[in-house]
Amino acid sequence: MAKAEKLVFYFGGGKAEGIRVAKTDAERRMILGGKGAGLADMTAAGLPVPPGFTISVQNCEDYYRHDRKLSAELKKQVMENMAKVEKAMGKKFSDVNDPLLVSVRSGAARSMPGMMETILNLGLNDKAVEGLAKKTNNPRFAYDAYRRFIQMYSTTAMGLSKEPMEEILHQAKKKAGVKTDPELNAEALKELCEQFKKFYSDNMKGQPFPQDPYEQLWGAIGAVFNSWEADKAVTYRRVEKISNLKGTAVNVQTMVFGNMGDHSGTGVCFTRDPNTGENVFYGDCLINAQGEDVVAGIRTPMKLAELGKLLPKAYKQLCDVRVHLEKHYKDMQDLEFTVQEEKLFMLQCRTGKRTAPAVFRIAVDMVKEGLLTKQEAIARITPEDIERLFYPQLDAQTAKSATKLASGINAVPGAATGQVAFTAADAEEMAELGQKVLLVRKETSPEDVGGMHAASGILTATGGKTSHAAVVARGWGKCCIVGCEALNIDYETESMKVGDKIVKQGDFLTLDGNTGDVYLGKLPLKLPEQPPAYQTLMKWCDELRRLKVRTNADTPYDAENAIKMGAEGIGLCRTEHMFFDTEERRLAIQEMIVAETVEARKAALAKLLPFQQSDFEGIFKAMNNKPVTIRLIDPPLHEFTPKDDAGVHKLSQVTGISPEKIKHRCEQLHEANPMLGHRGCRLCITYPEILDMQVTAIIKAAIACAKAGIKVLPEIMIPLTIDKKELAIQADQARALADGLIKAAGIKVKYMIGTMIEIPRAALLADQIAEVAEFFSFGTNDLTQMTLGLSRDDAGRFLPIYVASEKDGGKGIFKHDPFQSLDQDGVGMLVKMGIEKGRSTRKDLKVGICGEHGGEAASVKFCHRVGMNYVSCSPYRVPIARLAAAQAVISENLGKAKPAIKKAKKSAKKKTK
Amino acid sequence: MAKAEKLVFYFGGGKAEGIRVAKTDAERRMILGGKGAGLADMTAAGLPVPPGFTISVQNCEDYYRHDRKLSAELKKQVMENMAKVEKAMGKKFSDVNDPLLVSVRSGAARSMPGMMETILNLGLNDKAVEGLAKKTNNPRFAYDAYRRFIQMYSTTAMGLSKEPMEEILHQAKKKAGVKTDPELNAEALKELCEQFKKFYSDNMKGQPFPQDPYEQLWGAIGAVFNSWEADKAVTYRRVEKISNLKGTAVNVQTMVFGNMGDHSGTGVCFTRDPNTGENVFYGDCLINAQGEDVVAGIRTPMKLAELGKLLPKAYKQLCDVRVHLEKHYKDMQDLEFTVQEEKLFMLQCRTGKRTAPAVFRIAVDMVKEGLLTKQEAIARITPEDIERLFYPQLDAQTAKSATKLASGINAVPGAATGQVAFTAADAEEMAELGQKVLLVRKETSPEDVGGMHAASGILTATGGKTSHAAVVARGWGKCCIVGCEALNIDYETESMKVGDKIVKQGDFLTLDGNTGDVYLGKLPLKLPEQPPAYQTLMKWCDELRRLKVRTNADTPYDAENAIKMGAEGIGLCRTEHMFFDTEERRLAIQEMIVAETVEARKAALAKLLPFQQSDFEGIFKAMNNKPVTIRLIDPPLHEFTPKDDAGVHKLSQVTGISPEKIKHRCEQLHEANPMLGHRGCRLCITYPEILDMQVTAIIKAAIACAKAGIKVLPEIMIPLTIDKKELAIQADQARALADGLIKAAGIKVKYMIGTMIEIPRAALLADQIAEVAEFFSFGTNDLTQMTLGLSRDDAGRFLPIYVASEKDGGKGIFKHDPFQSLDQDGVGMLVKMGIEKGRSTRKDLKVGICGEHGGEAASVKFCHRVGMNYVSCSPYRVPIARLAAAQAVISENLGKAKPAIKKAKKSAKKKTK
Repeated sequence: MAKAEKLVFYFGGGKAEGIRVAKTDAERRMILGGKGAGLADMTAAGLPVPPGFTISVQNCEDYYRHDRKLSAELKKQVMENMAKVEKAMGKKFSDVNDPLLVSVRSGAARSMPGMMETILNLGLNDKAVEGLAKKTNNPRFAYDAYRRFIQMYSTTAMGLSKEPMEEILHQAKKKAGVKTDPELNAEALKELCEQFKKFYSDNMKGQPFPQDPYEQLWGAIGAVFNSWEADKAVTYRRVEKISNLKGTAVNVQTMVFGNMGDHSGTGVCFTRDPNTGENVFYGDCLINAQGEDVVAGIRTPMKLAELGKLLPKAYKQLCDVRVHLEKHYKDMQDLEFTVQEEKLFMLQCRTGKRTAPAVFRIAVDMVKEGLLTKQEAIARITPEDIERLFYPQLDAQTAKSATKLASGINAVPGAATGQVAFTAADAEEMAELGQKVLLVRKETSPEDVGGMHAASGILTATGGKTSHAAVVARGWGKCCIVGCEALNIDYETESMKVGDKIVKQGDFLTLDGNTGDVYLGKLPLKLPEQPPAYQTLMKWCDELRRLKVRTNADTPYDAENAIKMGAEGIGLCRTEHMFFDTEERRLAIQEMIVAETVEARKAALAKLLPFQQSDFEGIFKAMNNKPVTIRLIDPPLHEFTPKDDAGVHKLSQVTGISPEKIKHRCEQLHEANPMLGHRGCRLCITYPEILDMQVTAIIKAAIACAKAGIKVLPEIMIPLTIDKKELAIQADQARALADGLIKAAGIKVKYMIGTMIEIPRAALLADQIAEVAEFFSFGTNDLTQMTLGLSRDDAGRFLPIYVASEKDGGKGIFKHDPFQSLDQDGVGMLVKMGIEKGRSTRKDLKVGICGEHGGEAASVKFCHRVGMNYVSCSPYRVPIARLAAAQAVISENLGKAKPAIKKAKKSAKKKTK
Repeated sequence: MAKAEKLVFYFGGGKAEGIRVAKTDAERRMILGGKGAGLADMTAAGLPVPPGFTISVQNCEDYYRHDRKLSAELKKQVMENMAKVEKAMGKKFSDVNDPLLVSVRSGAARSMPGMMETILNLGLNDKAVEGLAKKTNNPRFAYDAYRRFIQMYSTTAMGLSKEPMEEILHQAKKKAGVKTDPELNAEALKELCEQFKKFYSDNMKGQPFPQDPYEQLWGAIGAVFNSWEADKAVTYRRVEKISNLKGTAVNVQTMVFGNMGDHSGTGVCFTRDPNTGENVFYGDCLINAQGEDVVAGIRTPMKLAELGKLLPKAYKQLCDVRVHLEKHYKDMQDLEFTVQEEKLFMLQCRTGKRTAPAVFRIAVDMVKEGLLTKQEAIARITPEDIERLFYPQLDAQTAKSATKLASGINAVPGAATGQVAFTAADAEEMAELGQKVLLVRKETSPEDVGGMHAASGILTATGGKTSHAAVVARGWGKCCIVGCEALNIDYETESMKVGDKIVKQGDFLTLDGNTGDVYLGKLPLKLPEQPPAYQTLMKWCDELRRLKVRTNADTPYDAENAIKMGAEGIGLCRTEHMFFDTEERRLAIQEMIVAETVEARKAALAKLLPFQQSDFEGIFKAMNNKPVTIRLIDPPLHEFTPKDDAGVHKLSQVTGISPEKIKHRCEQLHEANPMLGHRGCRLCITYPEILDMQVTAIIKAAIACAKAGIKVLPEIMIPLTIDKKELAIQADQARALADGLIKAAGIKVKYMIGTMIEIPRAALLADQIAEVAEFFSFGTNDLTQMTLGLSRDDAGRFLPIYVASEKDGGKGIFKHDPFQSLDQDGVGMLVKMGIEKGRSTRKDLKVGICGEHGGEAASVKFCHRVGMNYVSCSPYRVPIARLAAAQAVISENLGKAKPAIKKAKKSAKKKTK
């Protein structure tokens, strides 16, 4: 018979079986859970950990596979390990005179709200409680322990309602004439135990409260496993996109008591200050208390340092533990400890959560201290750490006490508060008056960008994380909640109904972009500061990375902002937003659209020319000496048409064309699938005069800047190319025009002409296209849409099901939303092919990316691997791209080692042949 | 000095310089034009051709390059060749006593309406006409020749108006008191010449009519070149998609005269009957007449055989020419000849136009006669030859005298006549009463298919060649005109305004799908018959081809029809059309859509199940023993929703859901880009019960058929796949269900599960997808849309400009409309990749195509080359696919010879090393 698999891992007395289950900390956490791995680590390191054992994650899977039953083999191994604990403690689990008590705790690889936390004092029963009372000579302590156990077991493990038990406790205090729990004496507590047991029996179909410690234990273990699938835990995993975890472990550990008098105590602490990152020992503790008392907030805990005065020996030991663990984990740790009669016990050790500024301070300090290399420090930072540095935040405590109006999709994190405006125009007007505004719309369109820019936050009733509102807001790092379906907006009355509440224009709301929650009223926000350590760390990133990081910016304001964020150029300057800037511009572009002759179209374009030229001059100045990629007009013309009668009327006045004709023309522009319609360079194929105007504006601006001594390198980018000849026609036209202007100006101005690769055919025929294009910029937003046949605007109806895992009610087809993180298998294959083919005909082809993916870490790393020259993303994503580009180099360095080993193996193999 | 290029090619006296310019007839035609090549051929073959010379096509290009001027070198070479002609004829071009007269004719590689045809008698002037009169002793003949020349030169070469000259002629006849031209005597004709010359001078800014024969000649040559760019010729080339021709040649040839008395004559003839294809000598001739008299129809020509009685020697010679030319060209020829005083002269020889039945008869007969091999016969047939066999036709003569109402895009050829219906329901109703109906709509949608099927022809105001109307109509081979913008349809009043005409429901119209013209009234149509030779030739194709040909058919009717057309299976059975068949079905699918619970959805689907099952049984029976590929539901749900209040009301009655809720649900289904939205297998990912219903219907139908002894091979096809797991989820679900049903039935039924490859990602990851799919069917309609980022429905606004050549006002970016002929460079690369990758993981993967391209010859050949197993197309395209598949084998055989040569060269190279 094969040896049974090891399901339970013992720790105690300086040895931990769990330490050998895997090589890395991460792998160990996957098997033992975070808590179990920490206990094993601490035990193995010789730290004082009460003995116990960890029931591995696998058992949780088995539990669900076997219809929520614990296997005989598991029970057998648990009992064997309990015997070891008994031996170590010199006590018996079922000894009614001197019972061994244990705690039972859940512990997945990541801590998770909604999962069962802890059951303490397990092993007590009607007889053992008496034994404990005698042994400790402290009946109050014993009955208090027992009533706590019954309460925790009933509610936490068996899921009985908490309120009735609290009510029983309340009545007991009333009866005893006392106000707080500690005031209840042993008798009262004993009485309480009886009442609790009766409550248990009444609510468990007459079953008495279990008296057999093992029955208690099986119940508690099962309860931990059941909590893995509790609604709250499932929801948390879905929201946090946790899909790689298979269950939770269970930790059974000898109880120690911090509430055995003044030489006992308990505390939680961090090895460094989790708020500032400062290298000081930080925490709270209580004398004569149990862990839950610290958390419950009944007594005010004291600063950790005071423990040094009261229990100097234990404190000294704790300080040693701190140093030891930081050396081991090379990271700040979050610890739980108990002192039982002057003896220190460590109960938990895990990587500590910290504020964004602390993340950077700790990483940089640890490099200075020699604990980490620079590369290790960089590798540790996450994109979210950077995000958190830049967004105003809503305090969780503040939020709790506020009135939540509704919840939507958390499209762009951060928080915003302001007065509601229901139209872009109103938003602009209110902002001009100095008001903070939140733009609230059913959905947004390019015409709204003015108002969106003026607003502090954006809230829409429809759309997903990649809707127009979300994409534009993300570009500006502006708090945005979309798909908030509870909003019933009525533009007529300038108000919205949300449930039974009415919100009117001018009312204050507060948006929490981190959670997607919308609150009534004006809540205070806080803005995290960027600490010096952040700058230091980003400098290290810049020294390491090879991939350049540019930004997507359409205005001098954006450009300047992006430079502050570390941008090295503009990778995508969209020219069409400029057309909406003022009514004059809007009318000119509309005039162009309804023009009935080439001459009329040219006349309308001539009006736009000076605007565009000055826009470009502003951007060139802001980006002095840095490359600027300008994309020619891209969206379909119907995005520019007047949207209401007033607009039509105005346009009719300007053009002399009848409103009917204008309406007809606008209707004509309607498309069944605008994404695949008359847009991009197709516009300049049919209306070459648009290209003429835009190229003229670009080159004239460059000439003007050059004359003013500003170095300019405009890169003219033609969008939506599908064919070499299509590109050549426009490139030739642009070059002829540009060269003529430059020659006439008598000044040297360099420029490049390239194209976006955003349609599969362009990637497939990139070798041909590169014969004309001097650079490629992969427009992975559209490339994703075309390659997957997936409209960003419509995918909301089914894509979430594709992305969500089976456990979360989805199908788990995609690991990530392909609009957020590049689909490396499919779209990535086209990108790789496009680069290789492109460089096969033009060796020095410059290649970048300018889709949303350019600011997403995994995608940026992909761009590095396939040999791009740069990524371009919205200003607020620039630091994330810089980080990811540096991390890509680190991964590459790690990867280099492996092939060397493989090679060695290969050559060894050869030799043996 | 380098020798000047040869620009002019002499023919005469049994020798023709043009015969050596190229190896193949086709290449020779590109250089000399069709007429020039024919004259060279006939001359070289020793046939009696009046000497002359051909000015090659290249000169036409040069002419345009040099600002419409004839080069000195060309003039020099023309004069040298004229000297040769003079020598051969023993006459001088400018001899006023016995002038050498010539004809000047255009001749491109293809004959083209709108180009200058002929100028006769060039070389005459005021003096030469007197010389001719004396020499022939026939002043009337001489002056008639002169007045004809002046008239032709003025109008044809110089572009003067025809009517005034006809009026002068009319006045001359009036003055002479005669009725016909031949009655005018020499004096009157001489007077007429003077009047014509005056008219010329008056209209040419005082310039006198040219007297110098060379001046006349240069003018005539220039006029031929100018006519190449005449509007009518340019339009013709655009309409016929002729883009490979670079210009026209000019033929200058000694005049011969069939009007020199009763021993002279002229005629046009075909070497076989162009109407039936019968192997008889066929033609018309006139004694004592010139060529133009035969065409003009002033005198009634006689049958060719009668010439044998009147001019037996010339006739005998002509019969020899016929045999000789058929042997040379291996094809039926169209000849022009003149007999001048008993001497036969051949003036033209070209491949003769013929009816569709004649095409097949001639090809098959020539194989039987040993003139052609079977493969040569097959290679000669064009797809259009087959099309013409099947479509009812409107007689050109009938059309001429009818009232044209409007013109649209000729989407599906053929003709149809019937009474107008403006709604699908009316069309169905009228058809049930036995009326012939034309369905006239602004545009059509899937809900209209019933009415479309009932109609004889379809006319829409919007859309292009690949709109819904066009695609569906093409599938049925049903005459269809789309994009007929002049129609102002008012559904309310059931009428339309077209210009100043009103057409009401029930009025008769006639559609000519070949031209796109719409006529008022009920015009007579004719239906070509399929001759036995067609069946013979298709049998040869079937013997030769390896590619299987299936059909796209959704009903037993279509299936039966397709089998008659030679289909070997169904490659695409769309299941969604079935949902529109009756109100009951429509309501059931709508009920499914608005269902608020899974149960309600399942209940609605249960109603559809028996319908679908009986549909499939019908199709399986029709296709007995042949494979049937059934595609699961594909279009987005909003295509099925009720389109008016009545429909909403009805659905509300059935479901008990309020009309408001129904409308809201329907609005919710709106998509920004439905093509990239919630459709295809995405529907069954979100609503797996739809797949259950459809698979159950398919398998139950197969079981029922199998029990009835009908062999069935259902191939279940999952559309719009983008990922292996997405497919696997559905394939697993379908297999579990199917296997269960088959097991329960206790009968053996085989089935396959495969997928459409119609999204780029599926082609890119085909190796993974083939691990699940047992077959691939390339949906090249959608694959083209995604790969090119081009919506079929919207491309009309710019794609024509992409496809049209520069000369025709376009940009010449694409050679063909990629929706009509597969984009082999781009989409084709994905198809090739998909097949190779797919077969890398599943060697025996069955691969087909089911887009519109499956019935287009060039695309079918591509499918053969990339190793597909079958193509599938609409029933009426099946014969075209069979032909193209056979022609692909022929091309392959031709191609095989070349690599063999290369190999030989390579090995030779090796040896020399």
